[in-house]
Amino acid sequence: MTDRPQTPLLDRVKLPSDLKALSDRELHQLAGELRAETISAVSVTGGHLGAGLGVVELTVALHAVFDMPRDKLIWDVGHQCYPHKILTGRRDRIRSLRMEGGLSGFTKRSESPYDPFGAAHSSTSISAALGFAMAAELGGDPGDAIAVIGDGAMSAGMAFEAMNNAGHLKKRLFVVLNDNEMSIAPPVGALSSYLSRLYAEAPIQDLKQVAKGIVGLLPQPLQDGAKRAKDMLKGMAVGGTLFESLGFEYVGPIDGHDLDQLLPVLRTVKARATGPVLIHVLTKKGKGYAPAEAARDKGHATGKFDVLTGVQVKAASNAPSYTKVFAQSLIAEAERDAGIVAVTAAMPDGTGLDLFAGRFPKRCFDVGIAEQHAVTFSAGLAAGGLKPFCAIYSTFLQRGYDQVVHDVAIQCLPVRFAIDRAGLVGADGATHAGAFDIAFLANLPGMVVMAAADEAELVHMVATAAAHDAGPIAFRYPRGEGVGVEMPAQGVPLEIGRGRIVREGSRVAILSFGTRLAESLKAAEALAARGVPVTVADARFAKPLDRALILGLARGHEALVTVEEGAVGGFGSHVAQLLAEEGVFDRGLKFRSLVLPDIFIDQASPEAMYRVAGLDAAHIEERVLEALGVAVVGKRA
Amino acid sequence: MTDRPQTPLLDRVKLPSDLKALSDRELHQLAGELRAETISAVSVTGGHLGAGLGVVELTVALHAVFDMPRDKLIWDVGHQCYPHKILTGRRDRIRSLRMEGGLSGFTKRSESPYDPFGAAHSSTSISAALGFAMAAELGGDPGDAIAVIGDGAMSAGMAFEAMNNAGHLKKRLFVVLNDNEMSIAPPVGALSSYLSRLYAEAPIQDLKQVAKGIVGLLPQPLQDGAKRAKDMLKGMAVGGTLFESLGFEYVGPIDGHDLDQLLPVLRTVKARATGPVLIHVLTKKGKGYAPAEAARDKGHATGKFDVLTGVQVKAASNAPSYTKVFAQSLIAEAERDAGIVAVTAAMPDGTGLDLFAGRFPKRCFDVGIAEQHAVTFSAGLAAGGLKPFCAIYSTFLQRGYDQVVHDVAIQCLPVRFAIDRAGLVGADGATHAGAFDIAFLANLPGMVVMAAADEAELVHMVATAAAHDAGPIAFRYPRGEGVGVEMPAQGVPLEIGRGRIVREGSRVAILSFGTRLAESLKAAEALAARGVPVTVADARFAKPLDRALILGLARGHEALVTVEEGAVGGFGSHVAQLLAEEGVFDRGLKFRSLVLPDIFIDQASPEAMYRVAGLDAAHIEERVLEALGVAVVGKRA
Repeated sequence: MTDRPQTPLLDRVKLPSDLKALSDRELHQLAGELRAETISAVSVTGGHLGAGLGVVELTVALHAVFDMPRDKLIWDVGHQCYPHKILTGRRDRIRSLRMEGGLSGFTKRSESPYDPFGAAHSSTSISAALGFAMAAELGGDPGDAIAVIGDGAMSAGMAFEAMNNAGHLKKRLFVVLNDNEMSIAPPVGALSSYLSRLYAEAPIQDLKQVAKGIVGLLPQPLQDGAKRAKDMLKGMAVGGTLFESLGFEYVGPIDGHDLDQLLPVLRTVKARATGPVLIHVLTKKGKGYAPAEAARDKGHATGKFDVLTGVQVKAASNAPSYTKVFAQSLIAEAERDAGIVAVTAAMPDGTGLDLFAGRFPKRCFDVGIAEQHAVTFSAGLAAGGLKPFCAIYSTFLQRGYDQVVHDVAIQCLPVRFAIDRAGLVGADGATHAGAFDIAFLANLPGMVVMAAADEAELVHMVATAAAHDAGPIAFRYPRGEGVGVEMPAQGVPLEIGRGRIVREGSRVAILSFGTRLAESLKAAEALAARGVPVTVADARFAKPLDRALILGLARGHEALVTVEEGAVGGFGSHVAQLLAEEGVFDRGLKFRSLVLPDIFIDQASPEAMYRVAGLDAAHIEERVLEALGVAVVGKRA
Repeated sequence: MTDRPQTPLLDRVKLPSDLKALSDRELHQLAGELRAETISAVSVTGGHLGAGLGVVELTVALHAVFDMPRDKLIWDVGHQCYPHKILTGRRDRIRSLRMEGGLSGFTKRSESPYDPFGAAHSSTSISAALGFAMAAELGGDPGDAIAVIGDGAMSAGMAFEAMNNAGHLKKRLFVVLNDNEMSIAPPVGALSSYLSRLYAEAPIQDLKQVAKGIVGLLPQPLQDGAKRAKDMLKGMAVGGTLFESLGFEYVGPIDGHDLDQLLPVLRTVKARATGPVLIHVLTKKGKGYAPAEAARDKGHATGKFDVLTGVQVKAASNAPSYTKVFAQSLIAEAERDAGIVAVTAAMPDGTGLDLFAGRFPKRCFDVGIAEQHAVTFSAGLAAGGLKPFCAIYSTFLQRGYDQVVHDVAIQCLPVRFAIDRAGLVGADGATHAGAFDIAFLANLPGMVVMAAADEAELVHMVATAAAHDAGPIAFRYPRGEGVGVEMPAQGVPLEIGRGRIVREGSRVAILSFGTRLAESLKAAEALAARGVPVTVADARFAKPLDRALILGLARGHEALVTVEEGAVGGFGSHVAQLLAEEGVFDRGLKFRSLVLPDIFIDQASPEAMYRVAGLDAAHIEERVLEALGVAVVGKRA
């Protein structure tokens, strides 16, 4: 294509082993071509641009020095892996990133042997790398293990746990700290300040000469190994006592965009390391592409864009996003109630709490990538008399599950959980799906669990949560835009545990929990057109259940079908439990519970994913007809 | 009573405020009496002895210096709180510790205003204290917040997340690091080595003079505050750059059994601190009671004992514990398969992996209190070609839930989860109950979930897990002894997803998942005696379900009752989902699903707890009769 960049050297690279034949000068040129190809690819797919651009030189250097896939290169989070994918045999599919049937936007084991450990959630890489390192030690796959982790991800407790364990085990292991002072939002923790001081107090060293000097010593016999290697590595360090406290050798900080530093330093540590080494690399997110470098989020996640101007192609939206509706509703409640505060775990933009922080800077806490702490900190705020809204994506709330059980639910503390990205999320795929929260929350004693059927309902649920001081309460809502309903001027607290009937029929009842309500209504219309009169109800609450509503529906209809955007074990299971306890099944009831299927669904558009999941109107209709025993013409597979 | 210690001073202390009237010399005496009373109480109740004895002086000093309950004192884990309970108005009930209707063995909000934040799981205290501190800042409850956390608990990622956030927020907050070099097992992480170096390189300072000098300065006007206070606190520190890196002032290390150090140092930091302060206190677990000090676990958890000799009263056991059966079975498998390795998160004794480590020291990893890392490290080991058994109690696996989903299940890595303490656990109460694991594991695609019906089944399930390389597999088993069945010479892998019929009947089918099988059989006998013939089946698998078995039971009986030691959303819910999908309810089936009730059940004997839960034979029988519509004479409430 005419708009593709000229990449003569990159065109010759089919696999990382091809880099071994290139001179250092050629690797410089390759990095330039790799950057251009990355920008070109993301311009047509959208995706995570800034992170990949920040590690172009690091990607080239790691593949030039280490021997993947024998050596295990593990990218933390994985959204910086596009240049890595281009170099590892996936260039031909790079313009299918994040699309249905295309490459994942993250690393993925099933996609390539060069992705030894997939990721998407942050801060897992050191644990995984240590696992590979110890497996190699004990007769498993041989090879070195290298984790590349950002400064934001390093602040998560999980990374600390892994460092603490690696420092204890003392085995050879490489951790590259990719310090770009910018994970998704600007970093907020004390660790981040510490890292800044490290290079403020001791400006970036030109370690080329030190490192080259050491490389010159390589032919020396290895028997003078350990002690000497340690001293030599120390010669490359200018700080890092925190990491040394944890048993790591510290090397750096070095300029992560200068191959003349990266190559000799990596060659040296590869030749010399006998224990865990942390290589502190400074990079710039969005490096080398002016529009990304200039953007507030450094091109973190972008839609398709024009390469020359950086202008993004955005689809016109018909309705506000659920995220924005949540933020605005919470601000409105907080205007009326000074006790309301908000907590996010490094996702101020994603959760909409950036808007809240803009209005109430002192009442908003970004605790960093630290979901465990976020939940228990919220519990402490609640115990101290405030009304915390803890806003965490469904998939990330899994990180704080024990804290929800042990610190919030058992103590019955009124923490409000705002659960964004509930259900299927589209391009981010299975790792970001919010599939399990209904199940893992609704069986906790004392918990209230709501799901918004549309954006107006979300406004009321924020008000409901604000008013609910008796114990914990959670409300979930999906990624993306609302359905365009009229918005209330002000949120009005809902009665706890009370659903609503949206449409009256007589033969079948569809009981929806969450935003499948629209599809349920569509299905009901289609069924009515076939002569099957359908009641549609919006449960609003998975806990406590609206027993009267549900038992009434069950007794007044031939069939009852529940619909939810979650895995089995959630809303439908609680309904089944109620029906069983009340003996409703004894006399026969055509009961079906439509849930997410028992598979991890790969990325696609949300609509396509819900089709795969069997949770669109056509499938709901089909399942109702199946329950009724009505033959369906043209039945789907 | 004649065997009670003489405690004239302690007898005058009804509440902590009474300590304000005592001289420092009297506080010394009080500490001695408090230690004697603690030993006396635990000798009749059993419980956590060593931890409490290690903090007697610290407890006295904190209550003498700070103003509880206005100031919030948060004991991490909480098992060291017995002396605190004695001083805070609960002495009259201290000999009911961990008993049904008695005091909790941990801190508990509902028990006393002096327990502002309950605990039982470790490493939550700093997050909670920071929540209180920020709540005070924003108009919530006033007062200082003090977290007391052990060195083992400090190694957990959650504590690091909280430190990182506290160092960033820079508000006044006290963290007392209770460094006893012994959490439950000997500590294993790099942080622990670091702490040891701190006091090895700089022996304990006698800070009395420094601190007293500063106290002498107290009347000085506060306007020379911040900078001066900082310098003065620094004067008390001899190390701790790791904590300083995270934005904390570091004070210590000081002798935690010397009130002449504790009192002036705490008074000084209370008077002077303007930001977060870490006070490093060295203590000895079991201090002051020779049998505890001499014990390998320092009297961590003990049964009732004779105060003079320290000899514990132990009930004779009829069968080996599930824990020991697991350990012996795993050792047997590992003898045959060199790929088997084991991972524990600081619970080598509790999980039985101490036995495994004794036999295979290099193949056993104790990663510290770090469940997130434990799971992903295991995933890395599996990706590296080994067969990891990750042994974590049900309740603590909640800490690694996201890692189970994201790193294990989505990647379909063959990690084997050995889930001890599944179900109700007795004296440790609600915080340690293993109630949710069936629900949160069985809805993960690709996961295999088993529960052992007895100790012989556990042997086979260990063999099944060892043989299962296709993906992740979990098996759960309860706390305590087996039922005394004959043990197989060797484990034989079970067919995945295949249950078994244990007893044949014709009218009712009871389908048990786990160790309620024995109660189910008892219920069946009682029902048979009433003329109701009952089939009893052991499902063995919650996932994949034995569809043929279950559908056969449903179609061949008037009623089907599932029984499990878990909350709704688990096994019974999966069975209900299957029955709904297959249209079994359409024609009527008396289906009941017996699960843990929707309450957190306080400590009692396991038998009493299962009675409360309605999962004993009598209740199972009753529920069957209710389903059949048979009137029951003397029906229970």
